[in-house]
Amino acid sequence: MQTLFRHVAVVGKYHAAVTPAAVGATRAALEDICNFLGRHGCEVALERETSTFAGMGNYPALDLPAMGTQCDLVLVVGGDGTMLGVGRHMARYGLPLIGINQGRLGFITDIRFDQFREILGPMLAGEFEEDQRSLIQANVMRDGHCVFDALAMNDVVVNRGATSGMVELRVEVDGHFVANQRADGLIVATPTGSTAYSLSAGGPLLHPSTPGWVLVPIAPHTLSNRPIVLPDASEVAIEIVAGRDASANFDMQSLASLMHGDRITVRRSEHHVRFLHPRGWTYFDTLRKKLHWNEGH
Amino acid sequence: MQTLFRHVAVVGKYHAAVTPAAVGATRAALEDICNFLGRHGCEVALERETSTFAGMGNYPALDLPAMGTQCDLVLVVGGDGTMLGVGRHMARYGLPLIGINQGRLGFITDIRFDQFREILGPMLAGEFEEDQRSLIQANVMRDGHCVFDALAMNDVVVNRGATSGMVELRVEVDGHFVANQRADGLIVATPTGSTAYSLSAGGPLLHPSTPGWVLVPIAPHTLSNRPIVLPDASEVAIEIVAGRDASANFDMQSLASLMHGDRITVRRSEHHVRFLHPRGWTYFDTLRKKLHWNEGH
Amino acid sequence: MQTLFRHVAVVGKYHAAVTPAAVGATRAALEDICNFLGRHGCEVALERETSTFAGMGNYPALDLPAMGTQCDLVLVVGGDGTMLGVGRHMARYGLPLIGINQGRLGFITDIRFDQFREILGPMLAGEFEEDQRSLIQANVMRDGHCVFDALAMNDVVVNRGATSGMVELRVEVDGHFVANQRADGLIVATPTGSTAYSLSAGGPLLHPSTPGWVLVPIAPHTLSNRPIVLPDASEVAIEIVAGRDASANFDMQSLASLMHGDRITVRRSEHHVRFLHPRGWTYFDTLRKKLHWNEGH
Amino acid sequence: MQTLFRHVAVVGKYHAAVTPAAVGATRAALEDICNFLGRHGCEVALERETSTFAGMGNYPALDLPAMGTQCDLVLVVGGDGTMLGVGRHMARYGLPLIGINQGRLGFITDIRFDQFREILGPMLAGEFEEDQRSLIQANVMRDGHCVFDALAMNDVVVNRGATSGMVELRVEVDGHFVANQRADGLIVATPTGSTAYSLSAGGPLLHPSTPGWVLVPIAPHTLSNRPIVLPDASEVAIEIVAGRDASANFDMQSLASLMHGDRITVRRSEHHVRFLHPRGWTYFDTLRKKLHWNEGH
Repeated sequence: MQTLFRHVAVVGKYHAAVTPAAVGATRAALEDICNFLGRHGCEVALERETSTFAGMGNYPALDLPAMGTQCDLVLVVGGDGTMLGVGRHMARYGLPLIGINQGRLGFITDIRFDQFREILGPMLAGEFEEDQRSLIQANVMRDGHCVFDALAMNDVVVNRGATSGMVELRVEVDGHFVANQRADGLIVATPTGSTAYSLSAGGPLLHPSTPGWVLVPIAPHTLSNRPIVLPDASEVAIEIVAGRDASANFDMQSLASLMHGDRITVRRSEHHVRFLHPRGWTYFDTLRKKLHWNEGH
Repeated sequence: MQTLFRHVAVVGKYHAAVTPAAVGATRAALEDICNFLGRHGCEVALERETSTFAGMGNYPALDLPAMGTQCDLVLVVGGDGTMLGVGRHMARYGLPLIGINQGRLGFITDIRFDQFREILGPMLAGEFEEDQRSLIQANVMRDGHCVFDALAMNDVVVNRGATSGMVELRVEVDGHFVANQRADGLIVATPTGSTAYSLSAGGPLLHPSTPGWVLVPIAPHTLSNRPIVLPDASEVAIEIVAGRDASANFDMQSLASLMHGDRITVRRSEHHVRFLHPRGWTYFDTLRKKLHWNEGH
Repeated sequence: MQTLFRHVAVVGKYHAAVTPAAVGATRAALEDICNFLGRHGCEVALERETSTFAGMGNYPALDLPAMGTQCDLVLVVGGDGTMLGVGRHMARYGLPLIGINQGRLGFITDIRFDQFREILGPMLAGEFEEDQRSLIQANVMRDGHCVFDALAMNDVVVNRGATSGMVELRVEVDGHFVANQRADGLIVATPTGSTAYSLSAGGPLLHPSTPGWVLVPIAPHTLSNRPIVLPDASEVAIEIVAGRDASANFDMQSLASLMHGDRITVRRSEHHVRFLHPRGWTYFDTLRKKLHWNEGH
Repeated sequence: MQTLFRHVAVVGKYHAAVTPAAVGATRAALEDICNFLGRHGCEVALERETSTFAGMGNYPALDLPAMGTQCDLVLVVGGDGTMLGVGRHMARYGLPLIGINQGRLGFITDIRFDQFREILGPMLAGEFEEDQRSLIQANVMRDGHCVFDALAMNDVVVNRGATSGMVELRVEVDGHFVANQRADGLIVATPTGSTAYSLSAGGPLLHPSTPGWVLVPIAPHTLSNRPIVLPDASEVAIEIVAGRDASANFDMQSLASLMHGDRITVRRSEHHVRFLHPRGWTYFDTLRKKLHWNEGH
């Protein structure tokens, strides 16, 4: 069988393997996958930290930018968190990603390790579903200057301080005043993020191909403050009006100690992340499994 | 002052005026508006039932299709319900609508009668915000035949019978299985409908320019069945799997006694409705007022 | 081993067994259980319809009132619905019930058929947890007369007609005006009913020993209309103010075609239902299993 | 007119008055009220800080414990926050409180300053509704020792750290395991607190005479984690299982930097707070006003 993807980079979820046994198991899995790729005609490289961690010097080691410019596909062995982290880095290079999961399947990583041989072969040969995800480009403005910027695949969250009562946020969309929200916080989520924190806070699900964001207030003081879905062409601005020790989170990154007058702006990145799924995959199958639909109680 | 709109049709909310005093007040309001339009260079016609009701034979009377082909603008004097009803008829003709409200302002009808002179003048001269709304084209299929079709501006709702426990609905999107939902019912709402029944059932708000629908289960048996937002390019199919006396509602129209196997299909109409608002209008201003945001409790 | 319960009535879920094979399986299960009870020193009777259905003439057949006066314990072989139905009848006699479930465990029927021998023995000997449940006594008043009355273990539900828009309900508690609610309907649920329809409509869980009801609006027009928990010493009155074809449901029984001015009154019954569970049972264990807590997604 | 309450203590909301004009207005209001009380036969004392703040040396100044032992009634001039703070201190003495509000009426402080003369007279003469509220006695246990204790009228809230992802909490009720909750936090609210933070987080309303608490998870990871109402005779224990920088809040007081293994226990205080309202007051009237019911949208 042939491959459409000549140069394939492999990334492992090395952070989670803390015991020698776990390290050994992860290395064995990586070797299985690399061998498999080699037999299918791929030239395999390892992400540099993965290479160091697994001690697999028999493959070239590449850092993330080099992967972006030199490879045709990234194969992530890990969970949704690893996949999103690597995806965010690959967005600007337009590289597709495939996720293999050694544990419980995720929303994005939907190939079980014990099935990768049967599933990966056809995918390398072009039998896949492509699933493009939008990203958020976020900036934090203070006194007219950008003091922080980040890409987010899931969400941007503005939070109150832990012991400080509500935060008050002035929300604008495309320069139009929306509301002053008093709440524990406010989430701006992508469709990808709509199955993460946003869902816990009461937000709706957004199909990945919906060109929109959802703004979800967290424990809002005003009971009629409902989640709002906006076209993702909109620019959202969130200004800290009141409340001590507010912070902003961008996927995993945090910026603490926001000041009154700080503005977090959110707009669509020009890039997308490309996930590849086995032929026949649909988002709804994943939703049903992950949310335990049709199991009753 | 001049007008961009040479031929203007006026429609009144005649159904609601049941006392002679109310009829008189509505007629007086219609005459004021028609006179005003005349002074601004418009040729005024009355919708036929409005004309009959108000006894205003001094203006030509047109039925809705004639309005669609002969006029440049429709001026609706009434509430959101009247506006949506007329809007649905005008969609295929591309005619814009302006709403004047004699009572409490609506989500769409946002010009108070006692202010129409100051506001309408500039609008006729081109000073307005255009607000395009999508529509649903719905069909009911039984044994391979279409037994019902309708346009909906707000929503399509499939309901259980009144005294019959849950309905079970098989939901598909673009031919992909989503879930078998056991619930009181299921709403497919447009952005316009997202502030109507969908909101009561726990759905999110959708900004009118969001190219999406929202599927909102009503009292779902499975607690993780959350509202889902879909691109409005999707076709949604809802099949009655179990439950007696299910019915379907399309804005105001109902189809009762659905049978097992009946399929309701929902797709975007090729037409839009065009609402005109005063210059400076934003959807968010309306939301804030209607949902009592920033009033605290 | 001895039994605390000398006379035991057995009730089967005969309604659900529609094929000869299912009838046979249910009869075999009933015979196993009756034999088991006999060996433990119980005098066994069968509920009359169960007896007829299973053709087990070797045990005395009793109707429900006779069971109430002549027996010490009722053993229900079936699901939550059967258990609640029999429990409602036994409340006035103070008889305890034990539930054995042939299928998926319920909120109340928590002994699996294949384990009944190990579990039932100790329970007959007094090793059980008693779980008392309150009931609702509901009346429908029209023109000053009671036109309907019913006991409900789960809930009283007032519903709009299937194709008739909202119902408007005037709610009073102990003669005090609460609100005019415009909604699809209103639920008054017991703690037992708080895991049933009420939960789907957004109501909270009420621990069975909470001396309260919960009023849960279904798809309320006013977004701040939240579920309200009341002491179960309160009398709740619900008057139909507007809306066509409203109906009221009392567990499974329905009263259709309610008229404007009809008042449904809800108060605590003087009786309780007594469920017995295996030693060590807690309500929270059941909640965790039935609601899939601690499974993650 | 006579008074049932011979010794009356007056407390002002001195914290909020930050400008000389506001201080003057508050002092004038306090003097009006004190004069009024004197004319009705009351012996008036001022809470010590109120006395200092207002410079009203013409009345005896008492600290809170002295008020508790020497007075028959406390009259609070301020909002709900002040009322709850003073109420918490008076609980052990069984003293009733009346609230007069200079701003927007609260859930508890329901006498407008400009109407106090007409309303207070009859109340002093015995024309009032008494409204008893339960309190929470909370302890924080670490390594078997109590490191913090507090009374709470509204709620006990366990929170995640501001930038630290979820907290995992093991919840027990009366020694029975309920669930391991992964969430932003967990609220245990009294009926009084059910209209405060708990309501924002999605909790139900609890009528003040409901002998219960409600446990409300904040943004729970598991979608079926719903609010649970418990009898207030239950003891709730919440143990920090995972998560950095968790904190606990007891009304306004905070305890930061909770450690894994810390247990917060919540039980009903043996005391109650007694609020007096004008004759005819009902809780539901207050709910309707504060939650904007029956205003439509």
